[in-house]
Amino acid sequence: MVSVDAVLLDIDGVLTIGEEPVMGAVDAVRWLRDEGIPFRLVTNTTRRSRRSVAARLGGLGFAIPETWCFTPAMAAVSRLGEMDASACHLIATGDVHRDFEEAGIELADGEAPVVVVGDAGDRWTYDSMNNAFRLLVGGARLIALERDRCWRDAGGLALSAGPFVAALEYAAKTTAEVVGKPSPAFFRLALTDLGVPAGRAGMIGDDVETDIGGARSAGLVAVLVRTGKFRPETLAKAPVAPDRVIDSIADLPALLERGV
Amino acid sequence: MVSVDAVLLDIDGVLTIGEEPVMGAVDAVRWLRDEGIPFRLVTNTTRRSRRSVAARLGGLGFAIPETWCFTPAMAAVSRLGEMDASACHLIATGDVHRDFEEAGIELADGEAPVVVVGDAGDRWTYDSMNNAFRLLVGGARLIALERDRCWRDAGGLALSAGPFVAALEYAAKTTAEVVGKPSPAFFRLALTDLGVPAGRAGMIGDDVETDIGGARSAGLVAVLVRTGKFRPETLAKAPVAPDRVIDSIADLPALLERGV
Repeated sequence: MVSVDAVLLDIDGVLTIGEEPVMGAVDAVRWLRDEGIPFRLVTNTTRRSRRSVAARLGGLGFAIPETWCFTPAMAAVSRLGEMDASACHLIATGDVHRDFEEAGIELADGEAPVVVVGDAGDRWTYDSMNNAFRLLVGGARLIALERDRCWRDAGGLALSAGPFVAALEYAAKTTAEVVGKPSPAFFRLALTDLGVPAGRAGMIGDDVETDIGGARSAGLVAVLVRTGKFRPETLAKAPVAPDRVIDSIADLPALLERGV
Repeated sequence: MVSVDAVLLDIDGVLTIGEEPVMGAVDAVRWLRDEGIPFRLVTNTTRRSRRSVAARLGGLGFAIPETWCFTPAMAAVSRLGEMDASACHLIATGDVHRDFEEAGIELADGEAPVVVVGDAGDRWTYDSMNNAFRLLVGGARLIALERDRCWRDAGGLALSAGPFVAALEYAAKTTAEVVGKPSPAFFRLALTDLGVPAGRAGMIGDDVETDIGGARSAGLVAVLVRTGKFRPETLAKAPVAPDRVIDSIADLPALLERGV
């Protein structure tokens, strides 16, 4: 039994499902704040800026400061800083570009030292793929905000960034650096902000690969919820087992009170 | 030294470069016909029907019967026959669809047991990728007419079918069956038409992987030309060495006369 000093929470499938909060999730988050247990949100969404993520949560009853929300775009900005890159060619949708612009990263249509790829929906065209490919062949590096296979929209399964990342890797004979979950660097970004070492923090997620596998690689205590994309057969086949499994985020207060 | 009874010829880079015949190529092909040496063309183009391939060659001075032209679409039609599939979902461009229609294959927009993917240019959109992905997740099999990385068009490097095949494989956790070169079955299709065993036939091509590697796997005598996409460094790094290297197709008559 480990007692944790802070927690990281996934959003989709843990706090929310579609455009509804998970039952008990609003109370669980309020409990964390009331108890003074530090937490941050780590989401793999690449269709919204940090500001939009916080605004959406606010609309669903979660009062969470924008600066507590960590997205792959934040991780990419951090990585671009490490690489001394002041510009990138971004393929993403929604208002994700804001996170780059507000960090002073120039978004280049043409030449750029780095191609950053997210979930881009209709922005994927033969031309946009070719543009990215030509930059990569010219020596640009490839950063993937995430490399999920698909997500479920109203019309059924829809492709995420992963297949397009795989296409560009194949075309340019390169390997993308994934900055979203399950990259340990992404978890560390949120932990650094919390000022808590990985071994004293818990990660609560619904994805056995990105949340649980990633958290374990980063040294966190990994807690799987049985909501969102949870499926018993996926858990049975998971290469990395969670430290704990709870029915939903509503059970988090009890878990933390008795020790994870 | 081997004497061969028949030859298979690649088209692009061997007989033609862009919209011009390779110097001496028209004479070399005429020599084959005059000498009564049986030959067939095996091209990986997936943007033209067999009829268009022959018509284009005719316009460049090569009088070659349509039925002597073998394309990946012909190989796909043959494979669909083996699979007892009377319909497929085709993503390709140009008039490639003709080869399927003329063979009695229904081209389905929706449900189909097989997804057939070629070089499709602007027909690749987020929607067309999603449609193919959903069919594959539903159990359809994936046939790739080819899986080249790119080709060089007027505007520079342009993506071939390969990257999109890689994307669909990643998304649907499947593996495509490649029916064009370097698939041995493709070479066998042309050899069966010639009635010549592989060991008595030569393959003349400019690509060390699809032509030379493929021909050697199929048991043919592999002859590389130094035209088209030939590069000395690519030959040096080739996993499979050609049996012979000649400067161009113009040297084929001399090679065949003295024995390969």
